[in-house]
Amino acid sequence: MDRALLLAERGRYTTKPNPVVGCVIAHDAEVVGEGWHHRAGEPHAEVHALRQAGARARGATAYVTLEPCAHHGRTPPCWSALVEAGIRRVVIAHEDPFAKVNGRGIRALREAGVEVSVGLGRERARELNIGFLVNAERGRPWVRLKFGASLDGRTALADGRSQWITGPEARADVQRWRARSSAILTGSGTVLADDPRLTVRMTDAVEFVPPVRVVLDGRRTVPREARVLDGSAPTLLVHQAGPDMPSDLDRAVERLAIPARNGHLDLALLMAELGRRNLHEVLVEAGAVLGGALVAAGLVDELLLYLAPSILGDTALPLMRMPPLRDLGQATRFDVRDIRSCGEDVRLVLRPRQQPGA
Amino acid sequence: MDRALLLAERGRYTTKPNPVVGCVIAHDAEVVGEGWHHRAGEPHAEVHALRQAGARARGATAYVTLEPCAHHGRTPPCWSALVEAGIRRVVIAHEDPFAKVNGRGIRALREAGVEVSVGLGRERARELNIGFLVNAERGRPWVRLKFGASLDGRTALADGRSQWITGPEARADVQRWRARSSAILTGSGTVLADDPRLTVRMTDAVEFVPPVRVVLDGRRTVPREARVLDGSAPTLLVHQAGPDMPSDLDRAVERLAIPARNGHLDLALLMAELGRRNLHEVLVEAGAVLGGALVAAGLVDELLLYLAPSILGDTALPLMRMPPLRDLGQATRFDVRDIRSCGEDVRLVLRPRQQPGA
Repeated sequence: MDRALLLAERGRYTTKPNPVVGCVIAHDAEVVGEGWHHRAGEPHAEVHALRQAGARARGATAYVTLEPCAHHGRTPPCWSALVEAGIRRVVIAHEDPFAKVNGRGIRALREAGVEVSVGLGRERARELNIGFLVNAERGRPWVRLKFGASLDGRTALADGRSQWITGPEARADVQRWRARSSAILTGSGTVLADDPRLTVRMTDAVEFVPPVRVVLDGRRTVPREARVLDGSAPTLLVHQAGPDMPSDLDRAVERLAIPARNGHLDLALLMAELGRRNLHEVLVEAGAVLGGALVAAGLVDELLLYLAPSILGDTALPLMRMPPLRDLGQATRFDVRDIRSCGEDVRLVLRPRQQPGA
Repeated sequence: MDRALLLAERGRYTTKPNPVVGCVIAHDAEVVGEGWHHRAGEPHAEVHALRQAGARARGATAYVTLEPCAHHGRTPPCWSALVEAGIRRVVIAHEDPFAKVNGRGIRALREAGVEVSVGLGRERARELNIGFLVNAERGRPWVRLKFGASLDGRTALADGRSQWITGPEARADVQRWRARSSAILTGSGTVLADDPRLTVRMTDAVEFVPPVRVVLDGRRTVPREARVLDGSAPTLLVHQAGPDMPSDLDRAVERLAIPARNGHLDLALLMAELGRRNLHEVLVEAGAVLGGALVAAGLVDELLLYLAPSILGDTALPLMRMPPLRDLGQATRFDVRDIRSCGEDVRLVLRPRQQPGA
């Protein structure tokens, strides 16, 4: 299964909106076939592995990182391909909660007399497809909020200058997170202040499906010349729903209307809409206002924090704008998932702490 | 030398104001004696090791973490003890820059015909006595600035409430830093807001020399009832020098007058005075004003930062108050020396980056 998980990971930049999947076919310790899903519309991992195994698949065990599919999509269902090849046993790391699968793959295999076990390597398999799984389970994407800040939690000087607080390694690392994301979300404030392109720029020639740039522009202040609207990647410009929605003639930029709540775009509705569009993993690269609002709304699943080893002082711009807390117990608490050096900077990955009983 | 360094470390809470020293006496791989300096006024590491070795010291090699002393202090000079015992070779990790030694120990050994080499394990030996060495070299203590903050660099809610941002492991860790410090420095703002005791409280029964509490009270606003003046540890109350310095009748609290500079206590003069008093390692546990002033004055040698995985928002209190920067290049930059988990928190140890050519 270790091998299957490593194979699955190879598709992390290219399978969107599909999940990454790896498959290894073996007789005991002897591997006879392996494969991974490359991109949507192309064969699934199981098909690659079965092709490689050929007749040696008969009586073998297939290790698959995600429940084999049960539906005729762009390819025939994998469970039947496994059965036809004579696979005797299937070991699955994680169920597929996608509505058209959701246990049907496992059931079909069992009904065909194949021995099925589920759960080996479950945690790792889940992490590989965290956005895909979470979106299927709860109907909104996995939201990863990225920040680069100084040790004292400052993202820019008072006048907004922020290039470059973090170093080149941190910036290169961000590009990899971008490449695996389905969408990159930002707000009009960031567009007006920094005019970012929000495209993927990796130094090594790695293939990737470009993430959709999602720009929150509730008040329609983003100028048409903004780089984020340059058409170099699919873009969604989000306005407050109203009678005067502009009709869009630009193919590269789609307009999306989201109702307001307390005068601001309803972020929960926005996320639900992104989920509906199969944008499973959203990377937020925004300022203190949008970041703070997402944290306060409980819409952040992961915090990706690059800390530059510098001090900017209290006149510099804060990491997150939020309403004052009544007491420390009210603070949003996280668990540290990963700490590492990233060039001269420190990278922290955190997730909100689950409330006891929640 | 590894062994000698480990032995030296055993004295880290007890040798103040003396340096920690470890000594191992060996014939090739066979150790015949070892020792470490326990506390000021008691035998040096070499004496302990020689006693253990007895006649077997003859012809042996002595590994010492710091240059053997050359002066008749509370004990006779160690170099002569080594010579008398018939030690053939001395391996020294670090020179002792203390005025009464400063190469004399090495010279005396060589003149007595002992083979001496210096530098094995130098870096580690230096870290063990960083305050002692730095104070001897430049006439001011090693200043370690400690902060506990949220991910967004906030140390307390807007009203000053800060208990407890970091968890019990971080607080226990701070106690160990306190125990190895010669002095703990704070400002009147922290005393008035938190009324800390600033004594060492370790759960395990570890011996230590209590650090001196140094309270900056330029404007004499610290009340006599403050816990930091409770007499439970030596205390230095620092006022602005002037004609009306109160005479002190309280044995546990000594008053110290330091001239002002731009209306504030001159922090460089303060540090020089603490160094003169053999307070080699100073742990600063203060607020954003004193912390920021020390960083801005270039008086911080190490930053000890406990990051709690929480977000307090921009209305909470900042980590460091400093004048605005003209550009990002002006920011005080640090190098990360150590990153680790500390319970649920993250602990960073950083040191100011040496400017090229500085």
